[in-house]
Order: sequence, then C-alpha cells, then structure tokens
Amino acid sequence: MEKTTVTLQDIREAANRIKPYVVRTPLLRERTMDKILGCKVYVKPEMLQVTGAFKMRGAMNKILSLTQEERDKGIICSSSGNHSQACGLAGQITGTHVVVVLPEDAPKIKIEKSKALGAEVILGPRLYDARWEMVEKIQKEHGYTVAHGFEDYTVMAGQGTIGLEILEDLPYVDTVFVPVGGGGLIAGVSTAIKEINPKVRVIGVQAKASDGYVQSRKAGHRVEVESFPSLADGLGCWKPGKNPYPICEKYVDEFVSVTEEDIKKAVKIVANEAKLIAEPSSCVGIAAILGKEVTVKENERVAFVLTSGNWDIDMIGKILNDEEVSARK
Amino acid sequence: MEKTTVTLQDIREAANRIKPYVVRTPLLRERTMDKILGCKVYVKPEMLQVTGAFKMRGAMNKILSLTQEERDKGIICSSSGNHSQACGLAGQITGTHVVVVLPEDAPKIKIEKSKALGAEVILGPRLYDARWEMVEKIQKEHGYTVAHGFEDYTVMAGQGTIGLEILEDLPYVDTVFVPVGGGGLIAGVSTAIKEINPKVRVIGVQAKASDGYVQSRKAGHRVEVESFPSLADGLGCWKPGKNPYPICEKYVDEFVSVTEEDIKKAVKIVANEAKLIAEPSSCVGIAAILGKEVTVKENERVAFVLTSGNWDIDMIGKILNDEEVSARK
Repeated sequence: MEKTTVTLQDIREAANRIKPYVVRTPLLRERTMDKILGCKVYVKPEMLQVTGAFKMRGAMNKILSLTQEERDKGIICSSSGNHSQACGLAGQITGTHVVVVLPEDAPKIKIEKSKALGAEVILGPRLYDARWEMVEKIQKEHGYTVAHGFEDYTVMAGQGTIGLEILEDLPYVDTVFVPVGGGGLIAGVSTAIKEINPKVRVIGVQAKASDGYVQSRKAGHRVEVESFPSLADGLGCWKPGKNPYPICEKYVDEFVSVTEEDIKKAVKIVANEAKLIAEPSSCVGIAAILGKEVTVKENERVAFVLTSGNWDIDMIGKILNDEEVSARK
Repeated sequence: MEKTTVTLQDIREAANRIKPYVVRTPLLRERTMDKILGCKVYVKPEMLQVTGAFKMRGAMNKILSLTQEERDKGIICSSSGNHSQACGLAGQITGTHVVVVLPEDAPKIKIEKSKALGAEVILGPRLYDARWEMVEKIQKEHGYTVAHGFEDYTVMAGQGTIGLEILEDLPYVDTVFVPVGGGGLIAGVSTAIKEINPKVRVIGVQAKASDGYVQSRKAGHRVEVESFPSLADGLGCWKPGKNPYPICEKYVDEFVSVTEEDIKKAVKIVANEAKLIAEPSSCVGIAAILGKEVTVKENERVAFVLTSGNWDIDMIGKILNDEEVSARK
C-alpha cells in the first residue's frame, strides 16, 4: 500500500534499519555559545554523518526498504547536492544501481562526485519540472524506483531519526531549530518530536532569499515565491514540497527566515565555538537567533540541527577570515 | 601511596569516573580521506570534547580523584593552553578552587579565558623552570594539589581513556597516530592500547621545529633540543616529560616529525573531508603520512587522534583559503 504520510513507527523502524550504516551523531553541548545566543545551546552535527550530510539517513532508509526485485532494478534521483551523494553511496553499499539526473549546467565537480560513487549520471533540463518529467520517463522505461529528496515518505522517515536521537540524548529539550528547503527533513524530525513530546517547540528556518514555507504559512496554503540566490544554497525553496507541507502544517510551530549577513556570522560562530565546518544552509537556526527572528530564554534548552558541511572550503575560509563572499548566481 | 606509573586499571577507572562530564567522542570513518592517505582512515575528534580539547579528560580525572580535603584546598596548574581551560572548567563543575600560573607575557585572551571559568590567575616568569619553582612555592603555602599537564599520572590516565574508546569502536585497529608535546597524552593512550592489544602500532608525531621525543629516541635517553616556533604550538617539546618518557619508551613504536608545510595541508584536509576545525597541533599524524614519514598500506585501519580545535579562527580561515600563515614567535 502506498504511504500517505510518515509516522513515528516508520521513523523508529528506519532507525533500526539504517543503524549499521550511519553515524549516531552526538548531541554536543556548546557552553561557549550560551552567551552569544542567550540560551542553553546544543548542536546535532550532521556534517559528521557519512557523506557529510544528514541525507544519508533518508537515502539509506529508502534503499533498505525496497524489495529485492526493486533493488535489482535500481533507483533514480535528481538533486545536484547532498541527496545524490547519499543515494550514490547507499547504492554502492547495497549493490544497487543508482541513476542521478543532474541539470545540464551542473558543476563538473558534482558530476564527478556522483560518478566516483558509482552512480550513472544523466544530464537533463535545468528547470525542475522539466527535469522531473525526464526522470519519470526514464524511471518508467527501466522500472527504477524514484527516491525523491523531500517528497518521499520513506526518505522523510530516515531524516526523522535525527528527531529521535535528539530526544534520546536530551529528553527535556525545549526548542529544536531545523533548516528548511523542500521540507523533507523537518517533516520527519517534527513528526518524531511532536509525536513523542508535543510540548517541544519546533521551528523551521529558511533564507529570506528563498522562503516558500514562511510565505505559505502566512498565506495559509502552499504558495510559489520568487527565489533568489543565497549562501544557503542547499535550502532553495520556491514552493514547499507537496507531501511534507501538510505534515509541517500539523507539527511545525513556526517558520522564520534569515539574512545572508546573519548566515555568515553563524558559520563563523559554529567554526569558532563548536569546531565544526558547517555549510551556510546548516547555520540558519543560529542565524535566526542572531537576527532576533525568534526569542529564546536563558534557561531554554535549544537544539540546532546542523545539516551538512559540503561547501567550497576556500569560501568557508573567507568567511572565517572576514573576507567578502556572496551567493553564486 | 604515590603513583609511579599509569596502568590499564587506572585508565579504566578514569573512564568510569569522568564519564558524566566528558563527551564520548565517536570514532569517525573518513572514507574520502582513504585515497589521499592510502589507508583506511578513522579520526577521533577531540575538538568536540568539552573545552574543545582532550585535556578535559585528564583534568577531570585529576580533580575527581582528590580527597574531599584536597578538593577543599584547591589545585594549581601552569599552562597557557588547553590544560588550564580544562582545569578551570573541571574546577567550576566540582566547586574546586583553581589557580592558574601564566607567563607574564601571556596573551590577554588566555588570561581572560581562565578568569571567565572562575580560575584565579597569577602571572609568573616566562621561563618554564622558574615558573614551576613559583608554582611549587605557592602550592606549599596554600596546600594546593599540583595538576601538571603531562607529568601527572592521574592526568595521563584521564587522557588514556581515548585509547580505550578507540579500541571499543574499532577493536581491529592496526595503527594509531598520536600528537606529542610533553607526552602525557601518548603515555596514557599507548598504555591503554598496548596493554589490551600489543599488536596495534602506536606512532607519536611531533613538529620538526620541536622534536624532543624524536631526538631522545635516537639518543636512547632524554635529551634537550633547540625548540623553534611552529604552527603546532600546542606541541612545544624542548625535552620529553620526565614521567611520560619511560612509558613511551616501553609502549610507543616510533616517533616521527613533520614539516610546517605538511601540517598546513593536513589542517585543510581535515576541514574539507572530516568537516572539523582542527588546530595545527592536531593534524601532525595526517601530516606524517603526507610527508611520507611513515608508510601505511591500503587495507591498514589507521586512527588519528585529533587533539583539539582551539586556535585563532581567522588563521584557520587563511589556511583554508591558501593564504600565507606562519608560526608566532
């Protein structure tokens, strides 16, 4: 039966399923950040995850949930970022053929990275809708299973394991900040957290440059927004994902958005205090407090999901050394 | 009875004692570093430790091992670096008075950091021997217990818990690289590892600029060397520690040293691949392989202890962006 949502049970099963293949990241208490952010700070460092991003959880859960017949045929995905890397490695580990459809103007490095993990790379249209039409066509021809980065409920369940782990390590957490692009991560995480403890506040954070969830929450329904380049290039969101959207409406307390300036400050704080390389997309939660988009109290236990660390290292270097950087067009 | 060495039993007891106060850091498998280093790479990220350095393990074990009477009187230490921070925080957690004797020309930031943790800061002579004379004088006056950063066996036992954890997570580890300054860390770690599995190769690594252990191993006894400034400023070693030296002679297979150039490359690799901010001192093990100071095999499971991440973040930024940096005089 086709899934129509993600449940706490799905997420618990995902946790058992992916356990041998992923890093159980610790929840790090960052005492020196308390003064800077005005609350008790914890970070969940998913840049330490296999492939340098949380995406491995969802991809691994997806592949391990396939029947042998489905796995023999292979999977197909389309993402120029961390989800493709994760599918590639999950495919390599399980011996599953993985097809990655990338936009024809994708940077060579991203094409090479997917190939290095053994994925078959196909170049397609730049535009999201046209590219997904192509994905569906190829999928039907070959009988592949589609592993969508944020629309797929099984992928969401994998990402949701982050929520379980936060509650395991800090049962009395008050607030959890989650970066939001398409919404797959926060759909999984908020389901895990709210189903276990509805009192925990879950806040979704986007870049002001691309704030589909913020505007949709205001409008009361899924709206399309104009999306601009942002340093948080992992969080592009011209429209909330169709499947995660209703889950977020149910479980996410608040969506806020942050400036590029505050994102840069947050990247530096994470490096300096937590000793972690975080890509800008990871740091929007911290940026939200710097920008006073959300109010927190001194004794509030606040966990920030730091999603990933895959970014040009020289650009990170420039941010740490207070040099100018700007979003790629 | 005064201790005259550190035993596996001491280290096991330390592990139980400090458990509630330290981070059980994961041993991270770094697949993308395999090609660069030519072996199966694991890192033990102690920059994620409380205070951003492994030193918290030793300091905490020392304070928790004191009698109530000793704890009421307080402890005294002298280090301008991570050990003082760790003693400061361990004192704060346990309500123990901590005195830190710093050289009179210590950077203001180091003085402030110790004070912020509630330590009493006393400024003393720049030279090591003269400063330790002062420490002993103050200690006798007030009945403080001395917590030496690398000569103290109880401190060594705390640092040795890193060795236990590596073997817990990777029982079939082949080789462990450990940065070496005074030698307290490697004395503890090598005791833990060799007492459990003598087949594991333990390699100590220093900067060529300050290689007291390398030269002493060659000479067959503790020798004094001329010590130059290095980016690995946490590993200053003009002479091996008196107490760790015989332990290292017993348990450490090899001491090697590395160039400043390879240290910089290693800092960048750790940031780019492992997504961790490592201070240069942390990265000498990786530098040793880059500089072909040690030979490793493709299937060899190699663990690198990354000791800490407390360094000027703008300097780290420069290294990541391939700008010029050099050791402070």
